[in-house]
Amino acid sequence: MKTTSDAQQGSERSSACRVALVGFGTVGRAVARILCEHRDGSIRLTHIFNRNVERKKQDWVPKEVAWTEDIDSVLNSDADIVIELIGGLSPAEQIVRRAIESGKSVVTANKQLIARCGPDLLKLAGTHGVHLEFGASVAGGVPVLPALRTGLSGDRLHGIAGILNGTCNYILSRIENARVPFSEALEEAQAKGYAEADASEDLDGGDARAKLAILALAGLRARVTPESVRARTIRPVDAVDFDYAAELACTIRQISRAELKGDTLLADVGPCLVPADSPFGRVQRNLNLVLTSGQYGGDMAFLGAGAGGDPTAVAVVSDVMFLAEGLGGKKRESASSVSTPEISCDFETAWYLRFFVRDQPGIVARLAQILAAHHLNIDSLLQKPGFEKSSLPFVITLEPCKDSQLRPALEAMAGLDFALRPCLCLPILR
Amino acid sequence: MKTTSDAQQGSERSSACRVALVGFGTVGRAVARILCEHRDGSIRLTHIFNRNVERKKQDWVPKEVAWTEDIDSVLNSDADIVIELIGGLSPAEQIVRRAIESGKSVVTANKQLIARCGPDLLKLAGTHGVHLEFGASVAGGVPVLPALRTGLSGDRLHGIAGILNGTCNYILSRIENARVPFSEALEEAQAKGYAEADASEDLDGGDARAKLAILALAGLRARVTPESVRARTIRPVDAVDFDYAAELACTIRQISRAELKGDTLLADVGPCLVPADSPFGRVQRNLNLVLTSGQYGGDMAFLGAGAGGDPTAVAVVSDVMFLAEGLGGKKRESASSVSTPEISCDFETAWYLRFFVRDQPGIVARLAQILAAHHLNIDSLLQKPGFEKSSLPFVITLEPCKDSQLRPALEAMAGLDFALRPCLCLPILR
Repeated sequence: MKTTSDAQQGSERSSACRVALVGFGTVGRAVARILCEHRDGSIRLTHIFNRNVERKKQDWVPKEVAWTEDIDSVLNSDADIVIELIGGLSPAEQIVRRAIESGKSVVTANKQLIARCGPDLLKLAGTHGVHLEFGASVAGGVPVLPALRTGLSGDRLHGIAGILNGTCNYILSRIENARVPFSEALEEAQAKGYAEADASEDLDGGDARAKLAILALAGLRARVTPESVRARTIRPVDAVDFDYAAELACTIRQISRAELKGDTLLADVGPCLVPADSPFGRVQRNLNLVLTSGQYGGDMAFLGAGAGGDPTAVAVVSDVMFLAEGLGGKKRESASSVSTPEISCDFETAWYLRFFVRDQPGIVARLAQILAAHHLNIDSLLQKPGFEKSSLPFVITLEPCKDSQLRPALEAMAGLDFALRPCLCLPILR
Repeated sequence: MKTTSDAQQGSERSSACRVALVGFGTVGRAVARILCEHRDGSIRLTHIFNRNVERKKQDWVPKEVAWTEDIDSVLNSDADIVIELIGGLSPAEQIVRRAIESGKSVVTANKQLIARCGPDLLKLAGTHGVHLEFGASVAGGVPVLPALRTGLSGDRLHGIAGILNGTCNYILSRIENARVPFSEALEEAQAKGYAEADASEDLDGGDARAKLAILALAGLRARVTPESVRARTIRPVDAVDFDYAAELACTIRQISRAELKGDTLLADVGPCLVPADSPFGRVQRNLNLVLTSGQYGGDMAFLGAGAGGDPTAVAVVSDVMFLAEGLGGKKRESASSVSTPEISCDFETAWYLRFFVRDQPGIVARLAQILAAHHLNIDSLLQKPGFEKSSLPFVITLEPCKDSQLRPALEAMAGLDFALRPCLCLPILR
């Protein structure tokens, strides 16, 4: 194994910021390429760690960089910054903790790690006088976290909403544009590399709620565990739902929302109806969009590539440069503390209820009766022609009410014998 | 005049960052309000400077803040940061220089100052080991400059384009939506406070090109004087141009563009045709939109309120917080130097040429002859019905060619006796 020698490093040592790269997959390689292509003496790549590192070696990496599969040699080195790009919780968490404890700042793109351990790791970094940056952990190529840290830090944000999962957006905008069945859109996404073989984490909202937890931490200063955020799956969304949404001048997107209301944080992840001509409605393919709402600055929108090796690498290198520029300085203790609000999904919105029924007399009367019994007001009843009576989709929209007010009605509807599928219930965001 | 006493400041002095506010207009008042409403001990307002300061005093400002009309008392104080919000070049430039020379960091929203003296002032700040931040100088409420400084710093940007002037966008989107004459849209904008009595600086592109110069400095690391950027006025744009643009599935916006091509910076400010369903085409009212294009991260869009006291104040306070957090640290010399490219407006685009003529036989033949003589290819000829023959608008669109190839043809057309107005020539951006 090659190691750097003091002689080799020469005069750069005193001024350059020394950076060790842990993880050499797609993003790691892109980070190394940017750092090697634009060497200006301010940042110096010292180590590249990976398992079976021999097969990873690239000839465009300068000779003085040490390729290693021994994490201790990285953590015991004089690197100023460790870039963690191995992902997952273990051993990433231990590596990040040890790096911080040995006085190194850490830059990571690890969404799961920050969503679960962000507040603790930030505290640990504070104790050791180093920095933890994670600008690449949400919406890779969209600099929303850096903007929250800098350009919007002077505001008091009360709401964040976003299209945070490119896989879901690819699938939903594909169904919207081609009216293909869900399963076909998913297969296409998998064939094009936009969805994994097991896409559950994306489709069922696990990925998006981890990102929402990070945005809530960075933008709303609220400590939120991903599991405390309700996640609704996009799997039951059907091509016919886009027909009915269009009747309402809407389309369907997976939206992640968080809103501070006093001591409560309202949070929800899942498919929603959004106006077709709204910023959310216009986001196509696998792009990401984040909207922030602030007390002073009003609303802001950020749009860009959410994932991909190069955009994510830009976010990582930007964090490294941010630290490298200020590394001589001791971070002042931030006086703005992180709150631990109660988490609720009890947003008040209008609702879209879609039923698939075996047609028979009295269905609407029965549903209307249940809704009335729960004091829910019907806004519209939509039934498009041309469907088989044996499997008839139709839609009821409700005037705004709280989630908690709607749930008992949905339960009462669950047992109806004419229903072929569970009612699909989507918030309508105006 | 009231001054702070050492006794009053007590124990906060050692930890809090001391901030002096120079200029107490709309933005200054909003900045003071944010700083006073969210006092967490990390930032301490020490001085408020304004002429005739007595009439400015507010009872919600803490008693220990010194109101003053003596700039020397601010510059000789122990403030760490001076916020310059008086605007214009003089005396703002002298105040900023003196503040830097006396070892204070400076935060400014002064577009004209940064567009003209930004590179020099940054160098001066580097010499004195202090910071100069100007995140509020472009697109106030849109954190594009902070994003360029942090989240996108790891990329190599080659292009920036934006809707940077809210006045122009208000007027153009108003004509688009209501097909009112230009003069009526301008009067409306003035009545609503979106345009000044003398709106030349906005309409003729002076404001936007100053902002473009700042974006080129921050994002493309190019030194550009505002005067070197061609600015085309929006005044000749007529309601009928939106009719013809709609025929081309386009609308019209004032677009500021800068693109690095080798050692040349292509730059232009003025009305352009943009697809109606593009991000630019959808920007309504006085909002701002900035698009960046990077080698690694691809395209990014930032949308938000471009101006206004509160959004601009958020940008100012964010800069102050950015400095306050890192103030203990000495800034590393940035190795990325600023280039001084040749400036050109010779973009290659398709073109929209609109003529107002006294109808007579042979007009199209004459124009086609001139275009052919200059090797310019006609893409389409549009003539909507229903106009008087005595003042007939019609449009020729050209296939893509360089600006420099088109100019001689436009000159040859200028002398034609049937032309009632100069030909309106707009780039078509796809």
